[in-house]
Amino acid sequence: MIQSEFEIIQRYFVDSGLGFARTGVVLGIGDDAALLQLPSNRLLAISMDTLLAGVHFPAAAEPALIAQRALAVNLSDLAAMAATPLCFTLSLVLPESNAAWLQEFSEGLLGLAKKYACPLVGGDITHGELSITIQVQGTVDPEKVLRRVGAEVGDRIYVSGFLGDGAIALASLGIDSHLGTSFALNEPQPSESCTAYFKQAYYQPEPRIELARACASTMTSGIDISDGLYGDLKHIVTASGKGARLRVNLFPYSDAAIACMSAENRQQAALYGGDDYELCFTVPPKYCQAMEQEALALNTRVTRVGEITQGSEIICIDASGSELPVSTKSYDHFGNH
Amino acid sequence: MIQSEFEIIQRYFVDSGLGFARTGVVLGIGDDAALLQLPSNRLLAISMDTLLAGVHFPAAAEPALIAQRALAVNLSDLAAMAATPLCFTLSLVLPESNAAWLQEFSEGLLGLAKKYACPLVGGDITHGELSITIQVQGTVDPEKVLRRVGAEVGDRIYVSGFLGDGAIALASLGIDSHLGTSFALNEPQPSESCTAYFKQAYYQPEPRIELARACASTMTSGIDISDGLYGDLKHIVTASGKGARLRVNLFPYSDAAIACMSAENRQQAALYGGDDYELCFTVPPKYCQAMEQEALALNTRVTRVGEITQGSEIICIDASGSELPVSTKSYDHFGNH
Repeated sequence: MIQSEFEIIQRYFVDSGLGFARTGVVLGIGDDAALLQLPSNRLLAISMDTLLAGVHFPAAAEPALIAQRALAVNLSDLAAMAATPLCFTLSLVLPESNAAWLQEFSEGLLGLAKKYACPLVGGDITHGELSITIQVQGTVDPEKVLRRVGAEVGDRIYVSGFLGDGAIALASLGIDSHLGTSFALNEPQPSESCTAYFKQAYYQPEPRIELARACASTMTSGIDISDGLYGDLKHIVTASGKGARLRVNLFPYSDAAIACMSAENRQQAALYGGDDYELCFTVPPKYCQAMEQEALALNTRVTRVGEITQGSEIICIDASGSELPVSTKSYDHFGNH
Repeated sequence: MIQSEFEIIQRYFVDSGLGFARTGVVLGIGDDAALLQLPSNRLLAISMDTLLAGVHFPAAAEPALIAQRALAVNLSDLAAMAATPLCFTLSLVLPESNAAWLQEFSEGLLGLAKKYACPLVGGDITHGELSITIQVQGTVDPEKVLRRVGAEVGDRIYVSGFLGDGAIALASLGIDSHLGTSFALNEPQPSESCTAYFKQAYYQPEPRIELARACASTMTSGIDISDGLYGDLKHIVTASGKGARLRVNLFPYSDAAIACMSAENRQQAALYGGDDYELCFTVPPKYCQAMEQEALALNTRVTRVGEITQGSEIICIDASGSELPVSTKSYDHFGNH
């Protein structure tokens, strides 16, 4: 069934309700540009990410899941700035005009868009190999912006949620990762509950919008973990001109990760795996209790995994205090892997 | 030569100067999101367009030209809202990390970005088939926003620049268009000056930012011509609940178009060809003189090509007043062509 670009936009992205009304969105889909109005005391935060079929998700994956992952990873960037979602734009490259696919994709987007009060306001549909580019717009109090710069010596390093699930999910879904052939599940056929858990972890990461907003004034720096804790914390220490010590024995792992992966592989996944979309952030000792209380009130796990130090390097230590070698690199789209 | 994603961003998109300082851009490349500050009396206009190699430009085209076309067509959407460019984001999908290609691409972007005071503030680089997604951000006075809605019966329909050059350029560059096999140049080998003219018309369309800003208060509606005058004017008449009469004998054509194309094919290119990135806009009779004076002061050609009517259809008439049949469709990415 061939539909025109305008019919696709109207049916799946307008009539579907994705362009719902939102304070601050003056004009959404349907003109040459969308129009936004900002409260005078807020900044606009914008971030763009592209997901390619075969690289960032399997082309045959369920369309609703692809949609949710595409929007969630972008919302995660807003969380990393402590911004509140305002709206998003979507450039969808489609190999064909498949009504069922579009319907499920649109419904997948709608669920997450509604949850975060983040309507679709515009974009583009073209014909080619499946890819999804989303730009999110959010607003943030200039006094509470979370940046990569700002970490101070002695600040505690925290992460939200669990580490390593993103990379372990890749292995569980049968997708190659960059962690090498030894990065494999304990059993070739994991349990159904593990498979289901990792599928959700991969396609439906939870952007830590609420945690970041609630705790921004206690945080000195923050980033979302898309390339592995080591690589993303490196951005924080580089921007802040500091070093860091990571205590790998404190890393939080999901039950599924513990059941499916060796301790060594879990640690590799946490440090170098990527795709976790959890927050890594730093908190001065005097604010740690207040931050942990806020996180508890939100029912969001936060775990202290290290501290900011002098210097410019990240060292990883085990339970005995011995330093571990740093052996592999974070995920990089053009790196040798 | 393999470079990491971060090295590519640093070298070609930061060190190149593309992220130059701009009032309103609080934070550019280098964190999880860029931060923008808006004057309290302005709206933000945002628009996103994707250009795919092999669809919107030949993969082997000069990288600087690809870059300029990608940014220009997005800026054209800001012109169509009478907005002033503020900044842009870029998602670049690259088949390989080619230093020479990146260098030229970056330089091509820089020229246009500087011209329109529109720095790069963020984006994404991934590995796959060449494509370029750009989102432009602009600001606009809420009282002077140019919309598709607003045309009134009796308003004159104007276009900027020449019509048809975009589609004729496709034929000149040897790229298939959707206008059929009869849409061909008079001579298989056009003159060098014609070839050079159309190459510039295709890759370096001039976004009509200044015209739209200067004349916005005289315009009742506007759109940029990306799909052919007929299809884009259709958006204006549909949004405005009106009809239109186009006088095809008044259409402005470039000397190169006249030299290279039959009158019939020129008219097809103007009405249904697309890729012109000129403005189509409506002006009440009482403001036409003022608008034309402003355009003259900007040295920008504007041509009256029809008027808004009752009804909901667009009719095309020739010099004798006879109605022409409407026979083909505007460019559509998923249509039958």
